[in-house]
Amino acid sequence: MTRFDPSDALYVDLYQLTMAQAYLRSGQIAEATFSLFVRNLPPDRGFLLFAGLEDVLKYLEELRFTSGDLDYLRSTGQFGDDFIEYLARFRFTGSVRAMDEGTAFFANEPMIEVTAPVIEGQIVETFLINQVNMASLFATKAARVVKAAGGTGVADFAARRTHGTDAGNKFARSSYIGGFVGTSNVGAGARYGISTIGTMAHSFITSFDSELTAFRAYADAFPDSATLLVDTYDTVNGIEAAVTVAHELESRGSRLVGIRLDSGDIDFLSRIARRMLDDASLGYVQIVASGGLDEFSIEALAKSGAPIGAYGVGTLAGVSADAPWSDAAYKQVTYDGRPVAKFSPGKATFPGPKQVWRCFDAGNGMVAHDHLTSADADSPEPNATTLLHVVMRGGTVTGDLLSLGQVRDRARMELGRLPESVLELTRPTSVPVRVSDELLASSPDREKI
Amino acid sequence: MTRFDPSDALYVDLYQLTMAQAYLRSGQIAEATFSLFVRNLPPDRGFLLFAGLEDVLKYLEELRFTSGDLDYLRSTGQFGDDFIEYLARFRFTGSVRAMDEGTAFFANEPMIEVTAPVIEGQIVETFLINQVNMASLFATKAARVVKAAGGTGVADFAARRTHGTDAGNKFARSSYIGGFVGTSNVGAGARYGISTIGTMAHSFITSFDSELTAFRAYADAFPDSATLLVDTYDTVNGIEAAVTVAHELESRGSRLVGIRLDSGDIDFLSRIARRMLDDASLGYVQIVASGGLDEFSIEALAKSGAPIGAYGVGTLAGVSADAPWSDAAYKQVTYDGRPVAKFSPGKATFPGPKQVWRCFDAGNGMVAHDHLTSADADSPEPNATTLLHVVMRGGTVTGDLLSLGQVRDRARMELGRLPESVLELTRPTSVPVRVSDELLASSPDREKI
Repeated sequence: MTRFDPSDALYVDLYQLTMAQAYLRSGQIAEATFSLFVRNLPPDRGFLLFAGLEDVLKYLEELRFTSGDLDYLRSTGQFGDDFIEYLARFRFTGSVRAMDEGTAFFANEPMIEVTAPVIEGQIVETFLINQVNMASLFATKAARVVKAAGGTGVADFAARRTHGTDAGNKFARSSYIGGFVGTSNVGAGARYGISTIGTMAHSFITSFDSELTAFRAYADAFPDSATLLVDTYDTVNGIEAAVTVAHELESRGSRLVGIRLDSGDIDFLSRIARRMLDDASLGYVQIVASGGLDEFSIEALAKSGAPIGAYGVGTLAGVSADAPWSDAAYKQVTYDGRPVAKFSPGKATFPGPKQVWRCFDAGNGMVAHDHLTSADADSPEPNATTLLHVVMRGGTVTGDLLSLGQVRDRARMELGRLPESVLELTRPTSVPVRVSDELLASSPDREKI
Repeated sequence: MTRFDPSDALYVDLYQLTMAQAYLRSGQIAEATFSLFVRNLPPDRGFLLFAGLEDVLKYLEELRFTSGDLDYLRSTGQFGDDFIEYLARFRFTGSVRAMDEGTAFFANEPMIEVTAPVIEGQIVETFLINQVNMASLFATKAARVVKAAGGTGVADFAARRTHGTDAGNKFARSSYIGGFVGTSNVGAGARYGISTIGTMAHSFITSFDSELTAFRAYADAFPDSATLLVDTYDTVNGIEAAVTVAHELESRGSRLVGIRLDSGDIDFLSRIARRMLDDASLGYVQIVASGGLDEFSIEALAKSGAPIGAYGVGTLAGVSADAPWSDAAYKQVTYDGRPVAKFSPGKATFPGPKQVWRCFDAGNGMVAHDHLTSADADSPEPNATTLLHVVMRGGTVTGDLLSLGQVRDRARMELGRLPESVLELTRPTSVPVRVSDELLASSPDREKI
């Protein structure tokens, strides 16, 4: 079984620690800057929504090696007492510049830049890439689903199929940023203050002698918040039983909230259900659709006008199934004030700290293009807006971060200013990122970038 | 920011708790059995390796609602004092039958069956599906990579690109079960006792004035365990610098372990590197390849005879990129001793607890077919082996579970007994699962299954 529970400080690739020991021993401990960016957008993505900063900053503020962590590292025989003592005193003391969460970003644009003594900046790489890559993929996937749903509410039902519990919790948060209205994940609701949403499972129905008995038991327990799952046996019979219970609730002054369809031809069944409910004077009972939905199937339902009042979306969004990874990278761009870069084919980087500038079309207010410049460059054109600003100094968060609600508003505003062609679900365009002449000249190997 | 840290007990879909309250209030609290299985194998999977049981059993043993959890639930206004008091005393008291971790399984075969008072069996659904689905997908993906590598060692470099830290840790464990030799994830090494493996990052090289200076600093810190990354600037120059450092280490009685190629035409560069190393009498220095590798690219390298001594595999394995999800389900199959099932189109289930029997070809010892029967059925044929056995009674693990090393051995044995056609990386066959006549007759809707 598990030996002990290491802290998040050990969520680190071994080489971060071996390099750190080598840095320490060679006296190579000056300040360095690292940029977190994606080299290319994933397939069928014209943008990504930045998310994960809150967790990154919390991690940086709280990062400590516990005595258990240190005992383990000592036991491996790879690390000397000098280095273990260094880790025992370790605090992240650096500064961070970042985009606001909810900001749309494009290839090669840093979302985060970390400046710190090189060991501190290096050790945090694994966690930072992990969290930002995941959260940004999730927020973006959710925004696609919300776009497809065209105004109908979408809820997160992914907790059972995400890759682990961290992903399940972060998907709830990121999908809320991307525009979902709530989550089935109770812990995420508690953690982030997101509305929790739920109906019932097939097993609840099968526990009882009949579907009608099960519906009545549930409606007794939740007379004002019940959504009944109608497809366990025969969907039309299930809808009829739900109508019966809805009328029983009315006679007691309550209202059935909805019915849920989780299988079969959702488009066809939703129309039958709507007509049966309307014929029974239950126009207020909404139809919830779920079961293997994603932005593509929801777009088809929305375009055909299926009378669906809410979607529950799980697996395919919760693993970002069509784009489960990005090539997010965290690269050193200065050491001791000197701009540095790698030249590896296909992976070359621009040296030095950066600024990202966003420029809008004066006519329609939409995003026109971005500029990527060195951090200290002048504004490349009038009315360009800077996206990177200081969020941490000396290892402490500076000022207030956006609340989760503000991040969600920010994302909605960002999406509203992206051209339709960038938002397309398949083969979108992206926003041009103009690299400054200064950066191009400083890149030792620009044709490989 | 985060409000509070809920326990794993709140890693639960809201409907588990609302159904539980409805069960409690309607007195519907008899014992039920639930089966965890996948309805269909993912694309290009002829089998899945079962993993995640250890975490499931630990969760079941330790499952408690904390006072913080209960305060949150009370604050939602959805739950009555009766139910909150029930949760305050909640313990999982049921029994579990399961396959051994490392066992190969196929569509419709339960890997886990839980028998418990219905509320207890229901509340654990979200966590159980989440952990087993993830771990089994990961172990299977790793087994595919190991097969492709054909005897060359493969290490887990995925920590930065998995969906969160839980996935990163579980990928380290599951990939070890699937045959990986170690992980770069230090915390997973500590947690599971897996060997940790690491080289160096490009940023280490770019911190120094020259590649040679960086290599020397690293070799000074790790004279007997250094693997030098040679592609930061020009790969051939990098190999030359590594040769210089290897000879310097020899003069001090140490040996360079390896060099790492992380970009470019790995096949071509590995041959150049091997010749340069051999020409310098450094036949013992191994070549490590990494950078966007998966079972398909590794199979190509192995088939072409590229002289690679070890692979580091990250992103594409760590998100199981070609199959990031399965349709794992957890379905009620009995209530109060009565077999139950759902009939939803495409999602119908066989009622009752099950047994899975494995039958081998008497000639070559390979897996021939499985039988799926009711739990109390007689052996369907001579020499059939049962795969489900009791691992928990009264909420307590019975006896010793397999150690992680034993699980890894079990997986290797299992893979060795699967026909080559089942192991194919693309368009594999699967193993026939013969459903007993008794089960077929008991399914109310067999043609939909």
